[in-house]
Amino acid sequence: MITGHVFIATSIDGFVARKSGELDWLMKQETKGEDHGYDAFMASVDGLVMGRGSFQTVMTFEEWPYEKPVVVMSRTLGQDDVPAAIADRVTLTRLDPAGVMKMLDGQGWRRVYVDGGKVVQSFLRDGLIADMALTRIPILLGDGLPLFGVLDSDIDCEHLDTRTFPSGLVTSRYRVVNNAG
Amino acid sequence: MITGHVFIATSIDGFVARKSGELDWLMKQETKGEDHGYDAFMASVDGLVMGRGSFQTVMTFEEWPYEKPVVVMSRTLGQDDVPAAIADRVTLTRLDPAGVMKMLDGQGWRRVYVDGGKVVQSFLRDGLIADMALTRIPILLGDGLPLFGVLDSDIDCEHLDTRTFPSGLVTSRYRVVNNAG
Repeated sequence: MITGHVFIATSIDGFVARKSGELDWLMKQETKGEDHGYDAFMASVDGLVMGRGSFQTVMTFEEWPYEKPVVVMSRTLGQDDVPAAIADRVTLTRLDPAGVMKMLDGQGWRRVYVDGGKVVQSFLRDGLIADMALTRIPILLGDGLPLFGVLDSDIDCEHLDTRTFPSGLVTSRYRVVNNAG
Repeated sequence: MITGHVFIATSIDGFVARKSGELDWLMKQETKGEDHGYDAFMASVDGLVMGRGSFQTVMTFEEWPYEKPVVVMSRTLGQDDVPAAIADRVTLTRLDPAGVMKMLDGQGWRRVYVDGGKVVQSFLRDGLIADMALTRIPILLGDGLPLFGVLDSDIDCEHLDTRTFPSGLVTSRYRVVNNAG
């Protein structure tokens, strides 16, 4: 069965980015030499699913950071909006979360990195997230793009483990137990 | 100097209560035999400051849970709204956060337990919180009363320590580093 997995950092008050998408508050953390498990996590997935907002933020980076295939969920962008240099690794889709997972399952994917606030929210609502690694950055932003959003009902989680880092980052992993959708 | 201290539990998505103030999701956690540090924290403070919402929620409990003095910030309630049984331990005030702290300082308080989402937010905005013990409950609620709110600027925090419990609760303590207000 194909499963969705979250690996994401938030401020203490739960934002993944400023309203504008900016990640400056995240980048300023002194985390040199720390292994937050990103490489191991990335090695464990077949590829990523993200939304237009995350895609456009990543496009502002100096280099495209992903070697694995990326699926971008957008109702407004088309394949023409993907630069030629990464066109072999980036696919646009207008499918809903379940449709995306079905498509990727058909392509042999087993583990999907689900990234970005809105996309994580929609996958959680549709019962498509198996577990989440949540890293808390020691800062309060007061405003921004929230990781979590409205649900149809409570979602119980099981705490798997928590690791702390000299930088002040704290990563907790949770298994999503029930997801009534 | 008088200082404000937070000791509070939230859902993974950052809520301290459901919209109605209900804490059922918190009460259902199997935490028997676990010491989350509440008694030690309570012993360290001179008393509590809370808002009308927290006060009215606590009033629904079978027993008034606080031995220490409680100051309730409310523009609508008056001293007449406090039941006689606890009138010696509960004071109503219409002062703002700085005014409350000045009043309590004058009464010899040194450490104040600042409780409840809205009150924590206003004390944070006014630079009156020294540290926070935040306990994360392993559940997503999707909606409710948030612990944190809008700020005038970023507030950097320093991670002090994190403890995990068999129930799945995770408590992280943060020192509030800068608070530009």
